[in-house]
Amino acid sequence: MAKSAKYLKTSFLGGVGEIGKNMTVIECGEDMIVVDMGASFPKEDSPGMDAIIPDITYLKQNLKRLRGVVLTHGHEDHIGAIPYYADVLKGVPIYGTSLTIGLLRRKLEKNAKKCNLVTVAAGDTVTLGGIKVEFIKVCHSMAGACALAVYTQGGTVFVTGDFKIDNTPIDGKKTNIQRIAEIGAKGVALMLGESTNVERKGSSTSEMVVGQNLEGIFAANKKKRLIVACFASSNYRVQQVLTLAHKYGRKVVLAGKSMKGMVDVASACGELNVPKGVIVESIGKLKPGETLILATGSQGEPLSALNKLSKGEFNKINVGSDDVVVLSSSPIPGNEKAVYDVINALFKKGAEVIYDSMNDIHVSGHAYEEELKLMLSLVHPEYFMPVHGEYRHQHKHSAIARALGIPSKNIVIPAIGESYSVTSKGFRKHSKVHAGNIYVDGVILEDGEAVVSDRRSLAEYGMILLLAAVDISRGALAGEVDVVARGFSLTDDVERSIKNAVADAVYSSDFDKADIDEYAKCMKRAVRKLFMRDRQFPIIIPVVVED
Amino acid sequence: MAKSAKYLKTSFLGGVGEIGKNMTVIECGEDMIVVDMGASFPKEDSPGMDAIIPDITYLKQNLKRLRGVVLTHGHEDHIGAIPYYADVLKGVPIYGTSLTIGLLRRKLEKNAKKCNLVTVAAGDTVTLGGIKVEFIKVCHSMAGACALAVYTQGGTVFVTGDFKIDNTPIDGKKTNIQRIAEIGAKGVALMLGESTNVERKGSSTSEMVVGQNLEGIFAANKKKRLIVACFASSNYRVQQVLTLAHKYGRKVVLAGKSMKGMVDVASACGELNVPKGVIVESIGKLKPGETLILATGSQGEPLSALNKLSKGEFNKINVGSDDVVVLSSSPIPGNEKAVYDVINALFKKGAEVIYDSMNDIHVSGHAYEEELKLMLSLVHPEYFMPVHGEYRHQHKHSAIARALGIPSKNIVIPAIGESYSVTSKGFRKHSKVHAGNIYVDGVILEDGEAVVSDRRSLAEYGMILLLAAVDISRGALAGEVDVVARGFSLTDDVERSIKNAVADAVYSSDFDKADIDEYAKCMKRAVRKLFMRDRQFPIIIPVVVED
Repeated sequence: MAKSAKYLKTSFLGGVGEIGKNMTVIECGEDMIVVDMGASFPKEDSPGMDAIIPDITYLKQNLKRLRGVVLTHGHEDHIGAIPYYADVLKGVPIYGTSLTIGLLRRKLEKNAKKCNLVTVAAGDTVTLGGIKVEFIKVCHSMAGACALAVYTQGGTVFVTGDFKIDNTPIDGKKTNIQRIAEIGAKGVALMLGESTNVERKGSSTSEMVVGQNLEGIFAANKKKRLIVACFASSNYRVQQVLTLAHKYGRKVVLAGKSMKGMVDVASACGELNVPKGVIVESIGKLKPGETLILATGSQGEPLSALNKLSKGEFNKINVGSDDVVVLSSSPIPGNEKAVYDVINALFKKGAEVIYDSMNDIHVSGHAYEEELKLMLSLVHPEYFMPVHGEYRHQHKHSAIARALGIPSKNIVIPAIGESYSVTSKGFRKHSKVHAGNIYVDGVILEDGEAVVSDRRSLAEYGMILLLAAVDISRGALAGEVDVVARGFSLTDDVERSIKNAVADAVYSSDFDKADIDEYAKCMKRAVRKLFMRDRQFPIIIPVVVED
Repeated sequence: MAKSAKYLKTSFLGGVGEIGKNMTVIECGEDMIVVDMGASFPKEDSPGMDAIIPDITYLKQNLKRLRGVVLTHGHEDHIGAIPYYADVLKGVPIYGTSLTIGLLRRKLEKNAKKCNLVTVAAGDTVTLGGIKVEFIKVCHSMAGACALAVYTQGGTVFVTGDFKIDNTPIDGKKTNIQRIAEIGAKGVALMLGESTNVERKGSSTSEMVVGQNLEGIFAANKKKRLIVACFASSNYRVQQVLTLAHKYGRKVVLAGKSMKGMVDVASACGELNVPKGVIVESIGKLKPGETLILATGSQGEPLSALNKLSKGEFNKINVGSDDVVVLSSSPIPGNEKAVYDVINALFKKGAEVIYDSMNDIHVSGHAYEEELKLMLSLVHPEYFMPVHGEYRHQHKHSAIARALGIPSKNIVIPAIGESYSVTSKGFRKHSKVHAGNIYVDGVILEDGEAVVSDRRSLAEYGMILLLAAVDISRGALAGEVDVVARGFSLTDDVERSIKNAVADAVYSSDFDKADIDEYAKCMKRAVRKLFMRDRQFPIIIPVVVED
């Protein structure tokens, strides 16, 4: 007990390039809670990986003190790591609103019964040892999102989570700015504020506006089939499409596993109101003007419903000049090429495609600059840490906090693995905690960093396999080496120079010729040297067998 | 002579994903000319490649009819393939304005003397067999850009090239809309119009505005060092920075080989006016407020000056709170992550970074929607082909042309390898010509497609090497196979199952056990089958040696 003083401590365990997004630990005394346990989506620098999840060594070291996991909302980057750590979390209560827990339960599949999933409502406060956590309704691109007020003996931490301030949300459930103001008035020691859209001026647009613009598309295309793609998790968007389809006499076919799953979960927990009979299993003999396909794949994902539709590989549906395709989304940075490839393919098939920028058929779920200012003004924290977003976003968010009167010394931009406590004397930085990236490729990889690093080299330069037989009695190569290359252009000239380099190196070197491993090392060195001058670094694998 | 009728024929040989950008062939009768010979920059789907250039088989087949190459301007995607084909083009005249030819000569290095480079001025007309080509001044992000009027017996082709309509260009040389109007009035059979910015509404901003905003930064940061990054090829931007530096008493250090090269070439041909004494070799003992570093690397390129500066690896310059870094550019799609990584690194070092979107310190060199309409109205072509940009851009550009009164049947969206002639009866599509991508990785790769395909697989799934010794006399494996994996996570379990699968397959199969190649095939099949169910497709390389 003596080890931990009664002060607030916050540590950041996960979030590839986006601090605090995936996982944050808050401690006071002997009590520890975790806020979110998400997975990141791999970028081009970690090819072929399914997900990147936080290293939870620090949690495992402190499992006895872990009182619970609290989830702000049900997006993958906030809950996606839990299925991989279901065994570690056995018995630890996991709190979230009904949609969040519903989605998590679906992700966990049969592991769900191992976990202690607890559904709360916005407004509830749960007690986790000496810590109390209040869930406060905020608007976001999906229902059930909450900010968290974490009450500890060392003070209150306010975690905004992902949020926007939408005064006309389609379900009427606004960000609870009255309650946030109350909490702020009572005194907040530390605020962790999301920074995603800090570079966007003004305020975000209400989800309601999307509905108005979508209705224009319904009204203008009464004879055509509509294909609408959006994130499955955007239940508000799904709601508006279903409502409009019902109003305009269209039947809706759900395309994509996650779309069907989301509709099941969200309607079961009351966050989606499906008009009776509007969803059908298949198009059957319905005319184009009587149908709507609601599909996943707004990010151009290769195996998604929209991508298959664009290739004519979905349910024998032939997209053509009778179709209007609406991408109610904007490309996540890094996905642009995939998204535009799908759009190009749909245009080539003769469809009309309505997308992005040129049409207001998508709004962001994250607060813009003026909303971030409002949140800081309401919470009025003593100390501030900008989280989520890249460093440039955190930097800009810090500048806003300073402009609102929070002194520079009370603002810290944290990084992954860093740990800070808040005391009467200000921030104190603690020694780093164990944190980082765990790569998932089907399963959790023990050697993820090495695998990723090799994949990057293989992608950039390819590989060369050197196959040699050696005659140990003579201490020499038994003939020429064989060279096999993949992802590397092996011309006759290059092959010849590799063979010569290896032969020369083995002949002129003075290693122990009885040691077969030494041949391999010598060969590899010789070939690496050969490519060094051209700044080419293929992976070189020598294989030596005894003749 | 009988083979080619006297009609206009246009074929598209290059431009990865952007038709007509890199290389277009125009023919009439026995005369053939080439417009531009550019290189594309590899995207993430062709990792590790230096460039992608057009396949010029069609040119080689028709070399006797090739009267010349005409270049619209000096950007890499319009001239970058020429150095690789210098031998093919021996003796063929290559025409361009002075900056274009100057940059090309520099790129060609010692190959320049093989080539017949001819400098023309805007307004000039050159005769190429039975074809005449007029160079018409257009504004773009670099000087010396021209639209081309190609006069043939089959009619006139108007090629816009990359252009914008800037009525206040900083050198006073406006897009020659009077001449374009005259040519249009005389009758243009076919127009090839660039489509890059067709999705942007209104008109592009004048380069002059960038100067005004840059001056604000100079005025506000008199005590700080300025680091400005832009494309080396943007001579107007470079000009404005040099002029402002001179005005505000700063010395300029050029950082990056291509920046120095561009300044040399552009000032030699009169397209850049370097104030005397403003450029210095090194910072020496100058104070921050007296210096400016003009650097390459506005796209986050790993080896660029700005990237090195962000890591403290450039000329021992330590970027910090005394620095204001200005990225006078916007990220090319696909480069966002690299650019923002550099920006994040500079912020972390304490510098102020001024970039993109939030500040008007960059303008595009490509026409927006209203400028494209103006061009179509001026040229008033009978037939229209939207070129450059992706299919979605071409599609939108077609819609604009229809709105301006060009009938649908007179508009074609061409694709690479396609060939069209224009006759009194309309477009006629010819059989495809040989065209496509040639990959360059140091040198031109003969087997580029295979290398790229392997690199993609290696990046996504890694590789597994199976090493087996066989005892042919017994028709069996001499012991277990060895398994080596790179970019693939080889756990003990997976290794065991590979070994078992291989042993089982060899034992139970009935191939000719005297044929050593058959063992390899059998092993590969067995392992591929093993991974198929998990949808993992590592490259499998079996190596079999006789025991």
